[in-house]
Amino acid sequence: MSDYTIDMRDVRFMLFEVLGLEKLAEMAPFNDEELGQGKEMYDMILDEAYKVAREKIGPVNEPGDREGVKIVDGKVVVPEVYRPVYKFLCENNWVAPSAPAEYGGIGLPETLGMAVSEITSGACIALMMTPGLTLGAANLVKVFGSDEMKEKYLEAMYSGRWGGTMCITEESAGSDVGASRTKALPLDDGTFHIEGSKIFISSGDHDLTENIIHMVLARTPNAPKGVKGLSLFLVPKFLVNDDGSLGEYNEVRCSSVEEKLGIHGSPTCTLEFGQDDKPCRGYLIGEEQKGMKMMFQMMNEARLYVGLQALSQASLATELGIQYAEERLQGSSFKEFKNPDAPKVPIIDHPDVRRMIMINKAYTEAMRSLLYSTAYYTDLAHNAEDEKVREKNQMLLELMVPICKSWCSDMSFRVTENAIQIHGGYGFCREYPVEQLMRDVKITSIYEGTNGIQALDLLGRQVPGKGGLRLMTLLQEMNAWVAEHKDHEQLGDLVKEVDQGKNKLAEVAFSFAGAMRKNPGAVLASAVPFMNMFGDVMGAYHLVHQALIADVKLREMAGSHGAADDQAIIKLANDNPEIRFYWNKTQTARFFVKNILPNIEAHMKSIKAGDSSCLDAVFAS
Amino acid sequence: MSDYTIDMRDVRFMLFEVLGLEKLAEMAPFNDEELGQGKEMYDMILDEAYKVAREKIGPVNEPGDREGVKIVDGKVVVPEVYRPVYKFLCENNWVAPSAPAEYGGIGLPETLGMAVSEITSGACIALMMTPGLTLGAANLVKVFGSDEMKEKYLEAMYSGRWGGTMCITEESAGSDVGASRTKALPLDDGTFHIEGSKIFISSGDHDLTENIIHMVLARTPNAPKGVKGLSLFLVPKFLVNDDGSLGEYNEVRCSSVEEKLGIHGSPTCTLEFGQDDKPCRGYLIGEEQKGMKMMFQMMNEARLYVGLQALSQASLATELGIQYAEERLQGSSFKEFKNPDAPKVPIIDHPDVRRMIMINKAYTEAMRSLLYSTAYYTDLAHNAEDEKVREKNQMLLELMVPICKSWCSDMSFRVTENAIQIHGGYGFCREYPVEQLMRDVKITSIYEGTNGIQALDLLGRQVPGKGGLRLMTLLQEMNAWVAEHKDHEQLGDLVKEVDQGKNKLAEVAFSFAGAMRKNPGAVLASAVPFMNMFGDVMGAYHLVHQALIADVKLREMAGSHGAADDQAIIKLANDNPEIRFYWNKTQTARFFVKNILPNIEAHMKSIKAGDSSCLDAVFAS
Repeated sequence: MSDYTIDMRDVRFMLFEVLGLEKLAEMAPFNDEELGQGKEMYDMILDEAYKVAREKIGPVNEPGDREGVKIVDGKVVVPEVYRPVYKFLCENNWVAPSAPAEYGGIGLPETLGMAVSEITSGACIALMMTPGLTLGAANLVKVFGSDEMKEKYLEAMYSGRWGGTMCITEESAGSDVGASRTKALPLDDGTFHIEGSKIFISSGDHDLTENIIHMVLARTPNAPKGVKGLSLFLVPKFLVNDDGSLGEYNEVRCSSVEEKLGIHGSPTCTLEFGQDDKPCRGYLIGEEQKGMKMMFQMMNEARLYVGLQALSQASLATELGIQYAEERLQGSSFKEFKNPDAPKVPIIDHPDVRRMIMINKAYTEAMRSLLYSTAYYTDLAHNAEDEKVREKNQMLLELMVPICKSWCSDMSFRVTENAIQIHGGYGFCREYPVEQLMRDVKITSIYEGTNGIQALDLLGRQVPGKGGLRLMTLLQEMNAWVAEHKDHEQLGDLVKEVDQGKNKLAEVAFSFAGAMRKNPGAVLASAVPFMNMFGDVMGAYHLVHQALIADVKLREMAGSHGAADDQAIIKLANDNPEIRFYWNKTQTARFFVKNILPNIEAHMKSIKAGDSSCLDAVFAS
Repeated sequence: MSDYTIDMRDVRFMLFEVLGLEKLAEMAPFNDEELGQGKEMYDMILDEAYKVAREKIGPVNEPGDREGVKIVDGKVVVPEVYRPVYKFLCENNWVAPSAPAEYGGIGLPETLGMAVSEITSGACIALMMTPGLTLGAANLVKVFGSDEMKEKYLEAMYSGRWGGTMCITEESAGSDVGASRTKALPLDDGTFHIEGSKIFISSGDHDLTENIIHMVLARTPNAPKGVKGLSLFLVPKFLVNDDGSLGEYNEVRCSSVEEKLGIHGSPTCTLEFGQDDKPCRGYLIGEEQKGMKMMFQMMNEARLYVGLQALSQASLATELGIQYAEERLQGSSFKEFKNPDAPKVPIIDHPDVRRMIMINKAYTEAMRSLLYSTAYYTDLAHNAEDEKVREKNQMLLELMVPICKSWCSDMSFRVTENAIQIHGGYGFCREYPVEQLMRDVKITSIYEGTNGIQALDLLGRQVPGKGGLRLMTLLQEMNAWVAEHKDHEQLGDLVKEVDQGKNKLAEVAFSFAGAMRKNPGAVLASAVPFMNMFGDVMGAYHLVHQALIADVKLREMAGSHGAADDQAIIKLANDNPEIRFYWNKTQTARFFVKNILPNIEAHMKSIKAGDSSCLDAVFAS
């Protein structure tokens, strides 16, 4: 057992009470009778995932951080404690439970996969990145690879026997992927020789799997400059024979691993492809010069996964903060300010500590809602029968991906920072787990496209693209929701504040096109504030939506106990965990709307100022 | 030489052009002819401090972080690299240059001491904490100790030969100091036996000095509960003979050192006083049961020092971010968005990177201004001839101390986070120095009273105390400033925005008394938002004040070059560093007012909502 914990009640609330996941089980391909999907199975998987996370994965999180990755005799060695756990995950189908049934998975909906990933990744993101990346690489092969490739690689990858990576970044091509220099030289047999160097490759080399299958962006001869000239190649560490056995070493060499602030157990590698004048064989995936397009499709998945990593650490930080604050006695209640003999109270009774805890709880639950909902859009976008439903959900998915990635990673960092603060001096000590969470989660605002890049994607592509239809789709959905709920007795005031927030967001969004013509620099400098504003409005919307659902149950349960007002409900909530859960949902929504949503006023004011002082300042360049 | 750097131009601008430090040199005690104080001397000291910081202190910052503190054969051992540097600091009077001349110092103004501290501490806060704490302990003895104590201890402490500590925190008495249990039992000779355990004692034990003089809060028999029953004791690690030589070991044992997120080179110790049934001698300082009062007086100094540590790391993070962004080529200019052959540009040309850099620059310069100004209040509060001037400055000092501590530490963390983000993936790697800055600076929001405690001090003591006179003093000063500058041609709009911010701050501050009667919990939960709001208004005020001063010089210089408008000035600024400095001052102020000051809208809205959902939520307690 470990310190690891997660609010499973909230996970289930989101999946079943908010999203109605069981309805997906009635939809193809999930309704295949052989799969046996349905609420019962989903519940069982969630229980098992929680058990695995607590009993197997969680216990290696701290030791893995201490031990870190080493290079021993030229080989990349992950923390010793990871080995048996990874083996267990492979043997029990936890590497890719949402993989299609034909490759050994259960073909779960993305939404459930998201929840399972949160539960398991949260227990040790450094270890769980290896399966996470393998899944992403395998999905690329599944969607774009030839039948032969699928046959040869997928079962081994989805089972975790082989790993997978995404090789995009180069030393001079970080955010600017188009500057990549890695070459792919055609060989006589239709394969390519890959030559170049890739950096920051997560799980780029390690000893957890017998082979590693790299997805590599490289440029064929005479291909144009920029991202448009990049093709995608499958490059195994060891070549694979036709019978699936491993062949020759394919000259993919790890020349160094990074020493990092966090995720110490995750090997971040510099990989040299075919650098020693020996052939390094790559197999083209899809068409030549379509590499970036394919990667982009995969990036949605990868970006959601990064948002999920962020959520998972925020979630744990929130729980640890609450636990500590419930246990730690310090000072007496503010209500007995003048009584020197007042008893010591747990610090959760101090308003400032409560404030931090509620910030954490509100962000975490908002992130969870945003991410699970976006996974749900994915399921509907891929599987809904009605084409209009598919299109609508694809729109919402594309709009939400950059927000899921960057708002969640930035806010998760805030949450871990708060968790340290709640722990006081102990939060700064390695003896307590919160400082590791902060170190580990920092990477999520950087990789898979920095948050600045995400914000530019939102501002420059997702919002104005498709004639603004993505944003319009969201606004219509929100307008209908506001119309339905604005006169709600208990929560109508919150619905109206979300409505106002939405209008301000729309006002700002629609102002960019004109502003872009006049002062593009100032608009581009507004990308991150706009992203944060968007995230805050979404957070409020999601939490108030949850509160509306919770309120129905709350009134029902409270009524059956004869509780007539809030004070009576609070009294009941002390002893009844279900009433407590629903009551806190309404308070968390209120807290977000009253204390966090006001941040949009600041963002709006600064965006509308159209200030360009940051560009007018003079630096050496 | 090291990576260490600091914007000395800005340090000098603050000291000489904004504060007019040379005027202090004309005031007693600084005007003593033997001391030779004046601008020339101050300039020389600043130059030397910078040299020492770059050449001696800076180079040990990273190795000290890697090596950390160890316990070897029961002894606390600091990083090997610290030893020669500490020796150099002692031999060259850098431990406490502002110490009084009678004890070997130069008796510098606090304001200059602050600047010197920023320059030297910034290069390695982990190492410089030892002299910092020694100075604080020595000052306690200087102000409250007996003549005999001063004689015996001060010269050795101010010179750095002996260290000093503050022993306040205990395991069950962190933020709640009044819960301390350490006992002081009177002995026949007028001294006391100290018995108890103190935790989180910075520089509590180490091998840099031959003796350590602890300032210990302990309770005498029959003393009342709470902080009012605490007395202050001087407890040496080794007793000191009358001739100043070291005597017996005094049973102060370090039982453990903390493993921490940052400041790895600084020993954070658990100290056991007289725990083995052997006498541990303590000497009462001042009167019995007045310990906390004396500590409080010292705490102003300590809190300013923590704010200064935060500033120093923000300052370095800002400089490193600018350097990296000026050097790192990635992508092409947004102005050539559609040209695939556009040249690569340094990332400082990208608006989103500029935004981060300007946030960092604006916060750093605002913090520096706030801290140096507060040190200047200290100098005037202690030394001005006119009693009214002393009183006024004491008021401003008391009001600003919690803001200097908490706003600077919270914003410095933001700045280091931004610096990581500017560095992209490299920011997460230990190869680059910014991740260490973030780890090191985190402690500043926790120790010397968490930022939550500081905010309560501001809200509950400094603002309402003395009949609100502290705040009134500040508001009057600001009103006069607004009246004088509101019609300024270039900067009048910024002055008016500061005016509005000030009015909002006052409105919120004056609303608390009434709200406190109705809903004290909600008010107490607003303490940190109020603190942040106060800090943001102060930041804007300070930077616009600087811009007004800079603008005079700018117009003068630009005029002499025949530059008539902003575009002409920008052109000049590219080649002329002085014009660039003054021009950037005006842009930094504008950036803060337009992009950071709007945060107060969010804080005000949430405070005025008077929301108590965080208290209504139900937790186990």
